[in-house]
Amino acid sequence: MEKQNRSGTAGKVIRCKGSAVCRNPGEPLVIEEIMVDPPKAWEIRIKILCTSLCHSDVTFWKISIGPFALFPRIFGHEAVGVVESVGEHVEEFQEGDMVVPVFRPNCRECRDCKSQKGNGCSIFGDKLVAEMPRDGTSRFKGMNGETLHHFLSVSSFSEYTVVDVVHVVKISSEFPAEKACLLSCGVSSGIGAAWKVADIEEGSTVAIFGLGAVGLAVAEGARLRGASKIIGVDLNQEKFEIGKKFGVSEFINPATCGEKKVSEVIKEITDGGVDYSFECIGLASLMEEAFNSSRANWGKTVILGVEMHNTPLAINTYFLLRGRTVTGCFFGGLKAKSDIPILAQKYLHKEINLDGFITHEVNFQDINKAFDLLLEGKSLRCIIWMD
Amino acid sequence: MEKQNRSGTAGKVIRCKGSAVCRNPGEPLVIEEIMVDPPKAWEIRIKILCTSLCHSDVTFWKISIGPFALFPRIFGHEAVGVVESVGEHVEEFQEGDMVVPVFRPNCRECRDCKSQKGNGCSIFGDKLVAEMPRDGTSRFKGMNGETLHHFLSVSSFSEYTVVDVVHVVKISSEFPAEKACLLSCGVSSGIGAAWKVADIEEGSTVAIFGLGAVGLAVAEGARLRGASKIIGVDLNQEKFEIGKKFGVSEFINPATCGEKKVSEVIKEITDGGVDYSFECIGLASLMEEAFNSSRANWGKTVILGVEMHNTPLAINTYFLLRGRTVTGCFFGGLKAKSDIPILAQKYLHKEINLDGFITHEVNFQDINKAFDLLLEGKSLRCIIWMD
Ligand SMILES: NC(=O)c1ccc[n+]([C@@H]2O[C@H](COP(=O)([O-])OP(=O)(O)OC[C@H]3O[C@@H](n4cnc5c(N)ncnc54)[C@H](O)[C@@H]3O)[C@@H](O)[C@H]2O)c1
Ligand SMILES: NC(=O)c1ccc[n+]([C@@H]2O[C@H](COP(=O)([O-])OP(=O)(O)OC[C@H]3O[C@@H](n4cnc5c(N)ncnc54)[C@H](O)[C@@H]3O)[C@@H](O)[C@H]2O)c1
Ligand SMILES: [Zn+2]
Ligand SMILES: [Zn+2]
Ligand SMILES: [Zn+2]
Ligand SMILES: [Zn+2]
Repeated sequence: MEKQNRSGTAGKVIRCKGSAVCRNPGEPLVIEEIMVDPPKAWEIRIKILCTSLCHSDVTFWKISIGPFALFPRIFGHEAVGVVESVGEHVEEFQEGDMVVPVFRPNCRECRDCKSQKGNGCSIFGDKLVAEMPRDGTSRFKGMNGETLHHFLSVSSFSEYTVVDVVHVVKISSEFPAEKACLLSCGVSSGIGAAWKVADIEEGSTVAIFGLGAVGLAVAEGARLRGASKIIGVDLNQEKFEIGKKFGVSEFINPATCGEKKVSEVIKEITDGGVDYSFECIGLASLMEEAFNSSRANWGKTVILGVEMHNTPLAINTYFLLRGRTVTGCFFGGLKAKSDIPILAQKYLHKEINLDGFITHEVNFQDINKAFDLLLEGKSLRCIIWMD
Repeated sequence: MEKQNRSGTAGKVIRCKGSAVCRNPGEPLVIEEIMVDPPKAWEIRIKILCTSLCHSDVTFWKISIGPFALFPRIFGHEAVGVVESVGEHVEEFQEGDMVVPVFRPNCRECRDCKSQKGNGCSIFGDKLVAEMPRDGTSRFKGMNGETLHHFLSVSSFSEYTVVDVVHVVKISSEFPAEKACLLSCGVSSGIGAAWKVADIEEGSTVAIFGLGAVGLAVAEGARLRGASKIIGVDLNQEKFEIGKKFGVSEFINPATCGEKKVSEVIKEITDGGVDYSFECIGLASLMEEAFNSSRANWGKTVILGVEMHNTPLAINTYFLLRGRTVTGCFFGGLKAKSDIPILAQKYLHKEINLDGFITHEVNFQDINKAFDLLLEGKSLRCIIWMD
């Protein structure tokens, strides 16, 4: 017994005019007509309003070998949309709801979701590259019938997508769509890492490796917690100006450190190392530098970057014995269903800055421009509008 | 103006009949007559009552190259003794006090010592192999005038030793000496790691790699916190029986795991990994296994082992992103001056088990026997009596 929706599309395959399909690793996306299946049980079909490019899309878009290299595929996981129709058993959502998809599942019923700690889900796990989480199949087909792969259970580079209910959060339809889009991944991940994972205290010293949207969201979180020093590390000198708006107070460009390691410079200017360091780039060598920049005794390093080559992080064990800690998080340790509404509320109350993260906007047809802007280091977030 | 002591030795060099000098890496210690200088300002000279062998002595005793290889040297850092005389400015101690030396300094005045977090000292640092911490010189000489090096600022394998006040804690003279000796390093390190660093909650699952005194002290700490499962990992099958007395509930011998990694076995029997894992051996490969045995989302790995070859720990960064944490500690994160008295009190109130850690006792002349017993895996702690 399907509830019919206004447009009469419920329960039917949608021929979707615009999907940005990636046919081969590292190649520009191609806007194609595709077929999007109706949602199965506990799934909803979403009409995307806008989406944006996160560096994690880029990382997986580039991977050409191994189990993570799945093509053709629909990337995109930072987005906001409106529910077009819902599958069986779906009670949390209905047609017309504004929703934010999130790559990190949150079933709210397993031991992990119920726990105060962390934000994993012991039922839905984190199959980083999987298709739909319950049956492992795809809801996308090319016009010739070929299967198109999902990405991070979201695949938002498409006019329509199908997402499991554990991967979606409802948000007020009055909330500005492009701001909601930011909460879907990068900005939430940075703020969450600063607040929930590091739990930065007033007066703390902080170092942030990588001043993209994720790193600057960490800075925003640190600034709001009253950090006394926020050191930004980036190879791109232009990030230094924009960083100031997010509270970054000191800048280090590794290219201008000469013989010195960045960690040595940081130790010099912080009397032995920072209280908290964050890696928001995705390179094991910089994760190590971040760790080495942290002070003995209580220094904590939080890894957010998704390692581009899956290189392990090498840690000096004596540095660990001196009381340093290293941890990491997906989605800033936030539980999507309960924490996204809190961040949205804080934005409405002007307690957090989201506007500054949006540096560019393009139409969906120009989605490859968003890739160029990010790769050239020109954008933080480029909003890609579906209309 | 020196206060004279009862034996009339204050301010004079003591010709000390018994010191176990290590002349070359890995060679048996030689009991020699040596000269022990009087304590300088903020130092005290201690007559050792008993001492015991910790694996950290063995690790440094074996090192034959690099800056840590200092010979001839007096090892030993787990001990208890009586103050023979005190140097200038010493008010905290006086002749006759029973004291426990601790390798981890605790000045109680620096930012780190005053902080609630960690147990490092920002003034005295942790020069793992240094001589006296204030002036960097030795208080020991051979009869031919050669300098004998200190170890960990304690050097307790000697009838008399000189220790800085920041490395000593007073303890009631009614407290049994051999139990106080245990609090000086290994047992405190294990209990502290379980209580202060991991902060194990009731019902937690725990894995401990290495069931020496340190690992079993972690077990004791975990048991007292109400851990639901304490998995012990050791190559020495005999450790399994003794482990039960300290609450170890399951045993894994890596040699009998076949193709499986220990971490896989642990994940199987704990539904995905333990809440807390501890490495108490000193091998990076096992630190990695300990990390891989911890559960996603809130699993915490605490490194206690002193890596024997200074090999870095290699960590899969995706495992970190899933919410795992790795940290480490010297002396269990305990602040020596305030926490040793607390542990001593708990022993007197029968709230912690110390007796079980003493498996052997020898006279000082037989100190090499203590090495054999530890290396053969027969002892937990062998008390070496000075008389
Ligand atoms: N853990 C999570 O949940 C999560 C969420 C979102 C993004 N991420 C990851 O966070 C990282 C950052 O994402 P983003 O969207 O902000 O990316 P971005 O491309 O906008 O920012 C990366 C920044 O790092 C800088 N950089 C690159 N190489 C550098 C080097 N060698 N030294 C110094 N700086 C360097 C770049 O100039 C850029 O400013 C990526 O690895 C991404 O996959 C993780
Ligand atoms: N962090 C600190 O403050 C601190 C304090 C004391 C000791 N330590 C370190 O803790 C470690 C343990 O010290 P201890 O005195 O208990 O030593 P120990 O020799 O009594 O115990 C080590 C145990 O590990 C087992 N083992 C050795 N190799 C193994 C392997 N490959 N796989 C499984 N088990 C193995 C041995 O059988 C033994 O039971 C050492 O590295 C020591 O230096 C650290
Ligand atoms: Zn992302
Ligand atoms: Zn769940
Ligand atoms: Zn020790
Ligand atoms: Zn101090």
